Amino acid sequence: MTVVAPKVEKEEEQVVNPWEVSAGKGGIDYDKLVDQFGCQRLDAATIDRVARLTGRPPHRFLRRGLFFAHRDFNEILDLYEKGEKFYLYTGRGPSSEALHLGHLVPFMFTKYLQDAFKVPLVIQLTDDEKFLWKNLTVNESKRLARENAKDIIACGFDVEKTFIFSDFNFVGGAFYENMVKVARCVTYNKVVGIFGFSQEDHIGKISFPPVQAVPSFPSSFPHLFSGMEQLRCLIPCAIDQDPYFRMTRDVAPRIGCQKPSLTESRFSPALQGESTKMSASDPNSAIYVTDSEEKIKMKVNKYAFSGGQDSAELQRELGANLEVDVPIKYLNFFLEDDHDLEQIKKGYGDGSLLTGKVKNLLGDVLYEVVKRHTRARAQVTEEMVDAFMAARPLPNMFG
Amino acid sequence: MTVVAPKVEKEEEQVVNPWEVSAGKGGIDYDKLVDQFGCQRLDAATIDRVARLTGRPPHRFLRRGLFFAHRDFNEILDLYEKGEKFYLYTGRGPSSEALHLGHLVPFMFTKYLQDAFKVPLVIQLTDDEKFLWKNLTVNESKRLARENAKDIIACGFDVEKTFIFSDFNFVGGAFYENMVKVARCVTYNKVVGIFGFSQEDHIGKISFPPVQAVPSFPSSFPHLFSGMEQLRCLIPCAIDQDPYFRMTRDVAPRIGCQKPSLTESRFSPALQGESTKMSASDPNSAIYVTDSEEKIKMKVNKYAFSGGQDSAELQRELGANLEVDVPIKYLNFFLEDDHDLEQIKKGYGDGSLLTGKVKNLLGDVLYEVVKRHTRARAQVTEEMVDAFMAARPLPNMFG
Repeated sequence: MTVVAPKVEKEEEQVVNPWEVSAGKGGIDYDKLVDQFGCQRLDAATIDRVARLTGRPPHRFLRRGLFFAHRDFNEILDLYEKGEKFYLYTGRGPSSEALHLGHLVPFMFTKYLQDAFKVPLVIQLTDDEKFLWKNLTVNESKRLARENAKDIIACGFDVEKTFIFSDFNFVGGAFYENMVKVARCVTYNKVVGIFGFSQEDHIGKISFPPVQAVPSFPSSFPHLFSGMEQLRCLIPCAIDQDPYFRMTRDVAPRIGCQKPSLTESRFSPALQGESTKMSASDPNSAIYVTDSEEKIKMKVNKYAFSGGQDSAELQRELGANLEVDVPIKYLNFFLEDDHDLEQIKKGYGDGSLLTGKVKNLLGDVLYEVVKRHTRARAQVTEEMVDAFMAARPLPNMFG
Repeated sequence: MTVVAPKVEKEEEQVVNPWEVSAGKGGIDYDKLVDQFGCQRLDAATIDRVARLTGRPPHRFLRRGLFFAHRDFNEILDLYEKGEKFYLYTGRGPSSEALHLGHLVPFMFTKYLQDAFKVPLVIQLTDDEKFLWKNLTVNESKRLARENAKDIIACGFDVEKTFIFSDFNFVGGAFYENMVKVARCVTYNKVVGIFGFSQEDHIGKISFPPVQAVPSFPSSFPHLFSGMEQLRCLIPCAIDQDPYFRMTRDVAPRIGCQKPSLTESRFSPALQGESTKMSASDPNSAIYVTDSEEKIKMKVNKYAFSGGQDSAELQRELGANLEVDVPIKYLNFFLEDDHDLEQIKKGYGDGSLLTGKVKNLLGDVLYEVVKRHTRARAQVTEEMVDAFMAARPLPNMFG
């Protein structure tokens, strides 16, 4: 007996789990994924409700269906409408020094949620996970966690409402107690069913899921949420993290905790197309926040899969196939102005805009995002990292 | 596929692992165990060497072969002879409030080692393990850990050389880093081979072995052994704990650590005989440190399996079978005076002493041990527990 991969996904030739995202030529079938995972679709009524409750326009990731699925997000909104609070939890596995734009997506969205709902946020840096999965030393994992913290802080989080922690530094105490409680509720067969481990996998992998589960429970953070053990938690994440939280939601009531709610995003596609996501292990699949203006424009021109026609003549005659066009997908993520986006899609679709022009536009948009990020990151000092990562109360966390 | 128990032990109808000790009618075959586990026999020359190096008579547990096996104990003695130091590690799973005399055996021996070699000692209270295996709450496990700490302190440990810690309180930081390093070196198949887990066992059980492994490494205790990362460790324990440390010794060089050495004891037999050990789940199998004088004498008279003959006449004629006689086994553990013990064995063996007389002697000896322990424990305050359990440097730990 070797690898026991989740069955349904194998039959569909579509593999989506926290360590692998791959699909056939048609790209990832997100509809199928929602059905397989048993989560819910994020509909227009819910998005309208977010706008109404927060008094802000919904984030472009919501308007454009990039965050497209959820679990019990409506319950969070019900509570919020009644004047109750919740907290946010998201995270990052620090496997590389430089982030790419796909890595920024959940943090951009989380920042919007923090601002809109005025709620505290915990950010888990799973340096232990990266030590367990990658061939890194403990010290290198911890160093990458701090470097990644700087990129996260550069997204503009409020230090008065945000606690960033590395597992190696923070695990212990109440957090560790919750880990052990979760572990007692989950059998080996169960984690194999959810995550597809093999018997030759090391026990660190098998025992890691509780570590990612427990930030969902306020009792894991007594310095933040003492006396608020029933506070609800909302987790913005990409849909490949759903297996962790399916497990978490299953265990929660058995240890007297509330189930976390989720809002789940699509993946940021690789430059090569939708069949996989931007990957740190293939530098040409992604735009990094450390890429120069030239490099960004070169990558877009050279690698971004185009839905345009092979010649200018054909393009003018037939127009581009927007369904598979990567520049359009990226503009969808990163171009804020809805009107501009519509104009580009219209012109490109009817053939009046050529691929080269659209790629040039995209290069400008991406470089603008990277430039803004680089400037913000340069302002982040070691002292700021220490401030965000200190285990401390957040006196004004709901303010 | 269900339970995968270690094969060799099953064939022999003798099961010895950290959770189960059972054997056929003949009692546990310790010789076979040494061969199966691949540890070494503790011979007379080594015991003489301990006496010579420490300038003290060897403990009765050594003189009488109750600590009978080891792993690389000779290497520890080699180093000590050259003027190098080591530290001691032992532990207890706090599954019950009251200890029995069998529980005291490793602590009595460890106290002797600490006094004789003048070395620091770490004592792990695995309250997390007991939470994972028994149906206890976290708070109850932590409470039992503190109660057991009082019984351990009552054995006379030196607060200037001893650090007692509960996993729930102490795990984190360097200790947690070592846990994760060990976990990365051990596959699921490996822990199944060593411990016999089933696929229906929860992942807490599967991931626990690293927790018991890492106190073997000085780097797990930076507040004690900073800059002494290659300090050797000696673990006094009962032989059923050998599987944990076989695993630990296998992993140690792969993460740049020294292998711990071991001295391993026989089990304290149940009152009913050698085929199992004293068990907290069967109160009549053991003498508790909380038992009254009457209860001790009643238990000895009623339950201690006798090798004496059925009638006084037969006993006078044939004498007792000392090989299976539990009172003699217990006197072997707890009667300090070698000469007295020989006299009793001689008289009982040749029929001049009757079972009733030997049981009366044993009752007196055991009550004396319990009385001494009870008095010492009554002196242990909450403040003393806090002092032993504070994560602090031990300024005079080798003094």
